[in-house]
Amino acid sequence: MTKTRKVAILGATGAVGQRFLSLLDGHPTFRVAELVASDRSAGKRYADACRWVLNEEMPREAADLPVRQATDDLDADVVFSALPSGTAGPLESELAKRGYAVFSNAKDHRMDPDVPLLIPEVNPDHLALVETQPTDGFIVTDPNCSACVLTMTLAPLAPLGLRSLVVTTFQALSGAGYPGVPSLDSVANVVPFIGNEEPKIESEPQRMLGKLGPDGRVVAADLAISATATRVPVEEGHSMAVNLKLDRRVDASEIVAAWNGYRSRPQELSLPLAPRQPVVYRTEENRPQPRKDWPRERGMAVSVGRLRPDPILGWKYFASGSNTVRGAAGGSILNAELAIAEGYL
Amino acid sequence: MTKTRKVAILGATGAVGQRFLSLLDGHPTFRVAELVASDRSAGKRYADACRWVLNEEMPREAADLPVRQATDDLDADVVFSALPSGTAGPLESELAKRGYAVFSNAKDHRMDPDVPLLIPEVNPDHLALVETQPTDGFIVTDPNCSACVLTMTLAPLAPLGLRSLVVTTFQALSGAGYPGVPSLDSVANVVPFIGNEEPKIESEPQRMLGKLGPDGRVVAADLAISATATRVPVEEGHSMAVNLKLDRRVDASEIVAAWNGYRSRPQELSLPLAPRQPVVYRTEENRPQPRKDWPRERGMAVSVGRLRPDPILGWKYFASGSNTVRGAAGGSILNAELAIAEGYL
Amino acid sequence: MTKTRKVAILGATGAVGQRFLSLLDGHPTFRVAELVASDRSAGKRYADACRWVLNEEMPREAADLPVRQATDDLDADVVFSALPSGTAGPLESELAKRGYAVFSNAKDHRMDPDVPLLIPEVNPDHLALVETQPTDGFIVTDPNCSACVLTMTLAPLAPLGLRSLVVTTFQALSGAGYPGVPSLDSVANVVPFIGNEEPKIESEPQRMLGKLGPDGRVVAADLAISATATRVPVEEGHSMAVNLKLDRRVDASEIVAAWNGYRSRPQELSLPLAPRQPVVYRTEENRPQPRKDWPRERGMAVSVGRLRPDPILGWKYFASGSNTVRGAAGGSILNAELAIAEGYL
Amino acid sequence: MTKTRKVAILGATGAVGQRFLSLLDGHPTFRVAELVASDRSAGKRYADACRWVLNEEMPREAADLPVRQATDDLDADVVFSALPSGTAGPLESELAKRGYAVFSNAKDHRMDPDVPLLIPEVNPDHLALVETQPTDGFIVTDPNCSACVLTMTLAPLAPLGLRSLVVTTFQALSGAGYPGVPSLDSVANVVPFIGNEEPKIESEPQRMLGKLGPDGRVVAADLAISATATRVPVEEGHSMAVNLKLDRRVDASEIVAAWNGYRSRPQELSLPLAPRQPVVYRTEENRPQPRKDWPRERGMAVSVGRLRPDPILGWKYFASGSNTVRGAAGGSILNAELAIAEGYL
Repeated sequence: MTKTRKVAILGATGAVGQRFLSLLDGHPTFRVAELVASDRSAGKRYADACRWVLNEEMPREAADLPVRQATDDLDADVVFSALPSGTAGPLESELAKRGYAVFSNAKDHRMDPDVPLLIPEVNPDHLALVETQPTDGFIVTDPNCSACVLTMTLAPLAPLGLRSLVVTTFQALSGAGYPGVPSLDSVANVVPFIGNEEPKIESEPQRMLGKLGPDGRVVAADLAISATATRVPVEEGHSMAVNLKLDRRVDASEIVAAWNGYRSRPQELSLPLAPRQPVVYRTEENRPQPRKDWPRERGMAVSVGRLRPDPILGWKYFASGSNTVRGAAGGSILNAELAIAEGYL
Repeated sequence: MTKTRKVAILGATGAVGQRFLSLLDGHPTFRVAELVASDRSAGKRYADACRWVLNEEMPREAADLPVRQATDDLDADVVFSALPSGTAGPLESELAKRGYAVFSNAKDHRMDPDVPLLIPEVNPDHLALVETQPTDGFIVTDPNCSACVLTMTLAPLAPLGLRSLVVTTFQALSGAGYPGVPSLDSVANVVPFIGNEEPKIESEPQRMLGKLGPDGRVVAADLAISATATRVPVEEGHSMAVNLKLDRRVDASEIVAAWNGYRSRPQELSLPLAPRQPVVYRTEENRPQPRKDWPRERGMAVSVGRLRPDPILGWKYFASGSNTVRGAAGGSILNAELAIAEGYL
Repeated sequence: MTKTRKVAILGATGAVGQRFLSLLDGHPTFRVAELVASDRSAGKRYADACRWVLNEEMPREAADLPVRQATDDLDADVVFSALPSGTAGPLESELAKRGYAVFSNAKDHRMDPDVPLLIPEVNPDHLALVETQPTDGFIVTDPNCSACVLTMTLAPLAPLGLRSLVVTTFQALSGAGYPGVPSLDSVANVVPFIGNEEPKIESEPQRMLGKLGPDGRVVAADLAISATATRVPVEEGHSMAVNLKLDRRVDASEIVAAWNGYRSRPQELSLPLAPRQPVVYRTEENRPQPRKDWPRERGMAVSVGRLRPDPILGWKYFASGSNTVRGAAGGSILNAELAIAEGYL
Repeated sequence: MTKTRKVAILGATGAVGQRFLSLLDGHPTFRVAELVASDRSAGKRYADACRWVLNEEMPREAADLPVRQATDDLDADVVFSALPSGTAGPLESELAKRGYAVFSNAKDHRMDPDVPLLIPEVNPDHLALVETQPTDGFIVTDPNCSACVLTMTLAPLAPLGLRSLVVTTFQALSGAGYPGVPSLDSVANVVPFIGNEEPKIESEPQRMLGKLGPDGRVVAADLAISATATRVPVEEGHSMAVNLKLDRRVDASEIVAAWNGYRSRPQELSLPLAPRQPVVYRTEENRPQPRKDWPRERGMAVSVGRLRPDPILGWKYFASGSNTVRGAAGGSILNAELAIAEGYL
C-alpha cells in the first residue's frame, strides 16, 4: 500500500462527496487530486462551489482545488463515485471504459452480474468479478447503508445457516443527504417510509452472502428478508431490530462468539480503514445506541446487542452502525484499499 | 350515563394521574371528588403538592382540592388508579374489598383470572368477570400502552385467524412518566430497551383476544408474539412495525376494510370517550407518524398504514396511537364508561 | 359579523396557505371559495396539487376545490395572501386595483405609507390608512412573526415609556415553512442566523407602536431595538429573551398588571379569533416554554414570564407565542375580522 | 511537565467525574490513581459502582480501580473535584488542609478572596493567590461553564474597555449532568430558566477579568452583566448571544483580530490541553453552532461569529464552546497543568 494513488471524487460537492473528502484527509495511500461536480460548479474553486455541510471542517487542501467536469481528462488512478443513482450509472460505465477504477456508492450497477457488490470483510473474493468486466477500467460497488450494517451482522452467522429474517430499521437523518429530510417531518417524530429503501435491504445481502460460482457469477444466498425502513430523528447511525431464523441449533454464546471473533481479509491485510474488530457485541441491556455507538473504530465497526431467543423465528437482536462512514464513503474506500492490496490496481 | 359519579384518582400527583385529571375535566358523567397521593403529599392543596408536567393546564377545580390518603374514607363511586406497579396491587385489592369500583392502569392485577384486562372495543364481554370477584367492589385493568395499540389493530383481523407476529415498537418519552427518560439518553438517539416492556407486549394481547369460557375464565388466544421495544425521541404516540401471519388467505383490501369498518360496543353505546372510528387506515405512503397522528379523535383512535405483503409472515404494516390517552388514562376511563353503561355500577 | 364572506387564499398550497385553510375551517364569517396557486398547480383538484404538511388534517371542503390562478376572476370578497415576498408585492397590488380586500402575510407592502401594518390589539386605528389607498380594493399587512409576538408584549407597556430593547429570539422550525430548515442543520443544534429576520424585528414594532398623524401618516415610535434571531429545534412557537429600558420608574407588579389587564378592540368587539386575554403572565419560574405555551387560546395569546430587574436596561423578561397562528395566518384573519367589524368591508 | 503526577478524582462516579476520567486517559503528566465517591460506592470496583453515561467508553484502567472515600488517605498529588456544590466546599477545604492541591469544578470556593477563579488564558497571574492560602495544600477553582465561554470571548477585548453586556445563553443538556433534564421538558422545547445560573454568569467574569492588587487581593473588573440563561435541546456546547458596550471606538476588524490573535500563558507554555488558538472567529453567517463547533481543538477552543454593530450597546456577537470540556473538566485540568508549569506543585 506504499505507492500513493491519485483519487478523483465524483459528486464532490454533495454530502457523500464531502464525506469521502473528509475520510481521505491524511489517508496513507490516497491523495485527492480531482474534485468533479456538475457543469454548474465546474471551473470554480471547490470552497466556492460547495456548501460544506459536515460537522468536520473542510480539509484545507481541498478548498483551493478547481472543480472539474466528468468529461474532463482526470488525472487520477481511482475514482470514488458519490453521484446520485440515475446520474451515476452511465457516467460510471463511461469512466470504466476510459480506464478508471471506479468505486461507487450508487445503486445503479450493484446488481450487474459482473460488478462486485462488496463488503471487504464479507465477500472479498467477489472482487475477482472485475476481471470479467469488458472495459479497461472497472466498477466496484458498495451496498445500501442499511444493507451494509445488516450484512456485517449476518456474515459471521452464515456458517450457522441463515434461513430468513425480519428487520425493522431506525435510520439516521444523514442517510438522506443534504438538504434531505425537512426538519418539520423529523422533529420529535418517526417517518415510517423511505423511498426505494426496503427493496435494497431485502435483496442486497443475499448477493453479498452469495457464492462466486465457477462460471464467474454470483449465486445469491438463499435467504428471505422482510424489511421495514423508518426515519428517526438521529443525526448519524442506522439501527435495526432483527428477528432471525437459523438452520442450526445453537446457543447464544456461539452467536456472540461468532460476532466478536469475526475477522476477515481487511484485518489480515491490515488495511488502513479496516476496523480491528468489525462486529462488537455489547453486553449492556440498552445498547447499541446510534448516537453513542456509531463512532466505534472511526465509524468502521458495527455494534450488536440484546441477543435473545425469539418465539417466532428463533433469535432476535439489535444492531447499529455508521451509515455515512461504514455504510457509504468509508466502505467504498475500504473496497479500494482491498483492490490495491489484492493487486487489482 | 346521566347520573354523575364521583371519582377518586389514586396517584393523582404523578404524570398518569395528571392525565386522568385532564381527561376528566368537563366529563359528562364523572366528577373528580378525591385526589389521593402518598403520605408526603396528604393534607396539602393539590396545586401545592403536585409538580404539574402536562402541556395542558391543570383544571381549575383540581387546584384547591385537598390531597387525601388511600386509607381515608373516600367519597367516590369510582376509583381510577394511576399508581406504579408494586404499590398498586395491594392497595387496589384493599379498595375493592372496601367496595369501590377500581379501574387500574397498573399491571399488578392484569393477569388475575377474575380481573378483566379490558379494551372496550376488543373484549367488552370480559367485563362480566367482575361478577366472579369475591369483593364488594371490583377491579378492572387496562393493558400496557403498546399492547393496547397493537391489540386494537389485531382485533378487527381476528376473524382472519391470527397466528403469529413480530412487532418492533418506537415508544414515546411520555410513556416513561416524569422525570422518566433522561434527556441525555434520548436526544438524537434510540434506546433499544425498555424495562419489563416486551413481556407485556408478548402476553397481554392473547388474554384480551381470548374467549370467556363457560367456567367464567378467559382462554387466551393462540397467538405467538415476539416483541422488541425501543424508546425514540418522540413526545407522545407509540408506533410499531408489525409483521403478521394469518390463517386465512385474504387480500389487502379485506384487511383495510376490516380496520376501517371496525365498530364495537363503545360505538354502539356512544360512550363519551369512544372514538367514532377506532382504527383508521391511512393511505399515504409515509403514515402513520406519531406526532401527527396521535391526536386523532382526541387520542382515542389508532392509526395504521403501509399494509403490504411480507415474504416471511405474510403481511406487514405500521401502527401508531396515543400512549397516555388511548394506552393509559383514556382507556381506563372508557373502561369505566362501559361498566356504567352495561350496568355494573 | 353575520354575513358570510367568500374568501380566496393566495399561495394556498404552501405551508402558510394551509394554515389559513385550517384556521378558516368552521369560521363563522369566512367561507373558503377560491384556492389560488402557481400556474403549475392551476386546474388541479386542491388535494392533488397540494402536499399537505400540517399536523391537522386537510379540511374536507378544500380537497375538491379546483386550484385557480391569480389572474382568474376570483369569486371572493376577501383575499388572504400567503405568497412569498417578492411574488406577493405586485400581485397584491394588482388585486387591490381589481377591487379585492387583500390581507397579506408578506413583507412587501408592510412599510408602504398608506398600508396598515396591523395587530388588531395594538394599532386598530391604523386600519383607517386603507382609505388613503388609491385603489378600489385595499391591502392590509400583518407583521413578521417574531415582531408580532414582541410587539404584543410591548404594547401594554407603551404608557410606561418604551425607550430601547435588546431581544434574542429562539425561533421554531415551522417559521421557515416547508421544506424549510434541513433536519441535519437543526437536529440537536442551534443556528444563530435567519436570513432577513433581524431587520424586520428591529423596524416593524416601531411602526405598529407609532401614532397615526393628522396627515394620515404613521409616525413611528421612538424606540431602539437590537435583535439577534436564532433557529432552535422546536416545532412551533417563537420565544424571545427581552431586555427593556422604560422611561418611567415602575415596579414589577405594574408591568405584570399591564400585561394581564391588556384588552383592546378585538376583545371589545368579541371578534371570532380574538383571544380573551391577549397577553398572559406566567408566574412559574421556568415559563413560558414554546411547546407548552403556544397553544394558549388556540394560538392567539402570547405568554410572558420571568420579569426581573436588569442591571443594564432596567427590566428583562421572556416571551413566547405561536408563530404560524398569532404570528401569521391567525393574525391576518383577525385583521380581516377587524376590518369587517369596523365597516371597512 | 515530565514528572508523572498521581491524581485523585472526587465525585468520580458522576457525569463530571467521568468527563475528568475520560480527558485524563492517556494524559502525558497525570495518572489517575484514586477514584473517590460517596460512602455508598466505597469499596466497590469502579466499573460496578458507576453508571457510565458518556458517549466515550470508560477507560480500561479505571474499570478495576477500587472506589475510595474522601476520608481515606489518598495516594495522590493532585485532586480534581467534581463534587456538587454544598458537598464540595467543606471537603475541598479539608483536603487542602491535609496538603492536597485541589482543582475544583464546584462553585463553593470561587469567590473566596484567597482562591483563584482561574482560566489559564485569562488570568494566569491569579494563581499566585494560592500562596496566600493558610493551608499546606491549596484550592484552585474554575468558573461556571457559561461564564467560562463568555469570559474567553471577553478577555481579548479587555484592552478595548469592557463596559457592560447583555447575554442570553442557549445551554446544552450535558450541562445539567445525569440524569439531569427530563426528556419531557427538553424535547422540541426551550426552558427559559436554569437554577442559580444567571447570578454566576453575572458575577464570575468580573473576578477573572479583575486585577491582582498589591495586597494580594483581586479587584473585580468594573463591568455590568445582565444574563438570561435557557436550556435548549442540544447535547453538548453552550452558546450565547452577547450585546456588548466597549469604551473605545473600534472597528469590527480590530475585534476579530483581537479574538483570532489571542494567545496567552497556556499557549506559550504549550500545556498539553491548551488549544493552539483559544478563540476562533467564524466568518460564515450562520456560525458558530454548538453541535458543529464544540469539538474544536478537542473541545478546548471557543468559537465566535456574527460580529455586527448593535444600535443599543455598540456590538453584538454569538459564541459557543464546550461546556463539559472547556467549561468544566478540561478547564480544571488545564488549571492543574498551569500550576505545575508555573512551579506551584
